[in-house]
Amino acid sequence: WVFLWQKGYQETDSVVSSVTTKVKGVTLTNTSTLGARIWDVADYVIPPQGENTVFVMTNVILTLNQSQGRCPELPDDKTECQVKNNSCFPGYVSTHSNGIQTGECVSYNSSIKTCEVLAWCPVEDDSHIPKPAFLQAAENFTLLVKNNIWYRKFNFSKRNILPTINSTYLKDCIYDAHTDPFCPIFRLGQIVEAAGQDFQEMAVEGGVMALQINWDCNLDRAASHCVPKYSFRRLDNKDTAHTVSPGYNFRFAKYYKNSDGTESRTLVKAFGIRFHIVVFGKAGKFDVIPTMINIGSGLALFGVATVLCDIVVLYCMKKRYYYREKKYKYVEDYEL
Amino acid sequence: WVFLWQKGYQETDSVVSSVTTKVKGVTLTNTSTLGARIWDVADYVIPPQGENTVFVMTNVILTLNQSQGRCPELPDDKTECQVKNNSCFPGYVSTHSNGIQTGECVSYNSSIKTCEVLAWCPVEDDSHIPKPAFLQAAENFTLLVKNNIWYRKFNFSKRNILPTINSTYLKDCIYDAHTDPFCPIFRLGQIVEAAGQDFQEMAVEGGVMALQINWDCNLDRAASHCVPKYSFRRLDNKDTAHTVSPGYNFRFAKYYKNSDGTESRTLVKAFGIRFHIVVFGKAGKFDVIPTMINIGSGLALFGVATVLCDIVVLYCMKKRYYYREKKYKYVEDYEL
Amino acid sequence: WVFLWQKGYQETDSVVSSVTTKVKGVTLTNTSTLGARIWDVADYVIPPQGENTVFVMTNVILTLNQSQGRCPELPDDKTECQVKNNSCFPGYVSTHSNGIQTGECVSYNSSIKTCEVLAWCPVEDDSHIPKPAFLQAAENFTLLVKNNIWYRKFNFSKRNILPTINSTYLKDCIYDAHTDPFCPIFRLGQIVEAAGQDFQEMAVEGGVMALQINWDCNLDRAASHCVPKYSFRRLDNKDTAHTVSPGYNFRFAKYYKNSDGTESRTLVKAFGIRFHIVVFGKAGKFDVIPTMINIGSGLALFGVATVLCDIVVLYCMKKRYYYREKKYKYVEDYEL
Repeated sequence: WVFLWQKGYQETDSVVSSVTTKVKGVTLTNTSTLGARIWDVADYVIPPQGENTVFVMTNVILTLNQSQGRCPELPDDKTECQVKNNSCFPGYVSTHSNGIQTGECVSYNSSIKTCEVLAWCPVEDDSHIPKPAFLQAAENFTLLVKNNIWYRKFNFSKRNILPTINSTYLKDCIYDAHTDPFCPIFRLGQIVEAAGQDFQEMAVEGGVMALQINWDCNLDRAASHCVPKYSFRRLDNKDTAHTVSPGYNFRFAKYYKNSDGTESRTLVKAFGIRFHIVVFGKAGKFDVIPTMINIGSGLALFGVATVLCDIVVLYCMKKRYYYREKKYKYVEDYEL
Repeated sequence: WVFLWQKGYQETDSVVSSVTTKVKGVTLTNTSTLGARIWDVADYVIPPQGENTVFVMTNVILTLNQSQGRCPELPDDKTECQVKNNSCFPGYVSTHSNGIQTGECVSYNSSIKTCEVLAWCPVEDDSHIPKPAFLQAAENFTLLVKNNIWYRKFNFSKRNILPTINSTYLKDCIYDAHTDPFCPIFRLGQIVEAAGQDFQEMAVEGGVMALQINWDCNLDRAASHCVPKYSFRRLDNKDTAHTVSPGYNFRFAKYYKNSDGTESRTLVKAFGIRFHIVVFGKAGKFDVIPTMINIGSGLALFGVATVLCDIVVLYCMKKRYYYREKKYKYVEDYEL
Repeated sequence: WVFLWQKGYQETDSVVSSVTTKVKGVTLTNTSTLGARIWDVADYVIPPQGENTVFVMTNVILTLNQSQGRCPELPDDKTECQVKNNSCFPGYVSTHSNGIQTGECVSYNSSIKTCEVLAWCPVEDDSHIPKPAFLQAAENFTLLVKNNIWYRKFNFSKRNILPTINSTYLKDCIYDAHTDPFCPIFRLGQIVEAAGQDFQEMAVEGGVMALQINWDCNLDRAASHCVPKYSFRRLDNKDTAHTVSPGYNFRFAKYYKNSDGTESRTLVKAFGIRFHIVVFGKAGKFDVIPTMINIGSGLALFGVATVLCDIVVLYCMKKRYYYREKKYKYVEDYEL
């Protein structure tokens, strides 16, 4: 019966949640431009704290030592030029420009000339994305999720670090759907795999993942039965054919002051995986009011049966005149 | 009939959403203190990534080369002083102070003396907001919104970049309610105008805008009919008479290390427009349970008619005794 | 009656909200490593703007002048070593490492030797948390919360700065549950106290607080009756026995370029209080449809009475045959 199956006798409430996260892990990269370099949490988690989100940089295009000045624009079909028929217009700027054209046509390299721009120079060249990803070791970084939920109507609150978990266990555990379903520490590679994706492939262009925490609870039972269930999903479309700027990236800059007082910056185009911690859930608890309302509706449904029978008997059957006569009692007018 | 009109036969679910944004645009400013300067995304989007929010700086008060030290406070009725009757108290600090008073009274300029404070010096003077806005060209910047939604109950997910849109179209399109209702790229000026506001006026003191995405869907129809609808609204009150700190601004600093090892910073009071991407929606799909419950309630309503008729006939009409006699069959006590 | 008590005749809607915040306050610290130093908003609010969240740093572990290099790891049971039986392995890195082991065993101080790591050097020593908290004066900082809500179904919007409040009042008021329940400016110490916590204790290791705004409104009454109600709650578990990384902290870095072109950074482990502004509420307004549905359910409940009576009379009582005879009229088959 619907009433019992759908728990129609319960009042329901949806979850109010707060999330904090912490990433751990260190890796070493070795490139010709940067040399050996250690990357730790303060380097690859940007911004250092989010609300329900944490971003881990997995790949990066660095443009070192940019300063305000004039330099050739990146070559594409609109910015390439020849000195003779000048296609550069002073002041011109398009959506995809790195700066504002000066009108000059200058050498980008030995073979190509492009329009000169006023910009942070040299302009970023993001045509080649490092592959494999620069910080491919991010696969083994860990993410600790602390989640506190609250069912306001029932004044019931709980954390995803269950009271049964002790700190020794928490220091070394890693979430596993089968063996450690309540450990709140996740290996990044595992989150991505559990969503059916390939971490190394995703690390190159970035992506958006959801770490879902489901707190569906029946509060008529003991509070210890109300436990979080984790699941994982990829949120951005993997199908690169139909997307502008596939994956996930954004730009930011670190600003420096040179010894002569001028400003320079390092422009960072950060590709990476953004983890959304999505918390949902519904709690139900016995309450007299929805019980009554649902019983009412339920019984009214039985009433439907009577009405339908009557309709069939009185209007559809051959012998309807006979039945109708029996059914209705005609009240003769009193005064007659 | 209410039942059909309100789609009472459908189970409903509310939307779970994830949003990422990207701003594009470059502008040039030319002032006496800064000289010619190019502003690009890494300069005016702060922080570089938000959750459902993106902030574009449109106006700015820069205080260059601040360092820890002693300097005169900004003059107002509480901080102005005369050397004779000293109104400065060592250690005093109020809510609106820039620093902690030393107790001295020093010259702010040739005519005014104010209390000296320990602070980042020189203190910021934000009494004059640049007008027109410093980055007024922000009107032509573009905002790309990528939104992925999910109806959990029906396991239905969709993106605001519809499958029918190809990447050539996306490269150049700009949202327009009439001609391009599904283009996810918005001109900032257009968003503000669509909400009935003036961009240049808003740019001076900042403001908060909502970009609303409505995903109301009837999932009994084909998935391709489930499309986003965009709308725009201003969230902060324009009426400046009744507000403290009208508009929207916040302060942050860029820290530098001087060649002698001391720290200095550039304090930035950033005015700008904060865009909230608000996603809402309800999906409905046929389901047998709410259908039954609603039919039940609906039919019970018909029952009301009978009851009301009875009440009128039996209690209100003159001939009520006659009807009552007919209606009720008095069962004599068996044993009598 | 349930119908009136639960306002069953109203259509309900849940709140859509946008929040902006602003913190004010200055404090002075005096330590041997940093000397006298002023901290203002740009220093202790990180990131400078959040969505529904604002973080105020109350305690800090600074590691100045870090640069990429080799140095001894922090001593613990896994990283301590003796030169003879070398327990350091080149390339080894664990979850809690600060860097990647080189395989050498070097002196941490005069008595202890630890494994050498490639890392940002010197490594952070966070074993001693300053107590009392470094920025204990944060207790007197103030937090201005601007909140705009919207009930979409009724197109009703309102701000928490009520129209009756003038700007003179707002300049100096401080929220107090009894005397100033509508002042949107909160003393941080008061928020924490109202949740039954001790600010100075919380300031040491940090914590997460909720500032709840309740907008439950009956829109059948005048709009001026729809006012916010503030309440306060601590979200993280105070019980330190059962938690990893109790309190709330995160790490970030400020990057500098030295005069010789090398990069150094100041690593900041920021402890502090994160304030979540949680907005909830339900508005109800008279609407004919839920009224009808609820009346239906309600009357169906009366129908239950009749049905129950019938069941008792016809099946349970001794004289049931007699009643049953009276109740049902047996219709003989017409053709017979």
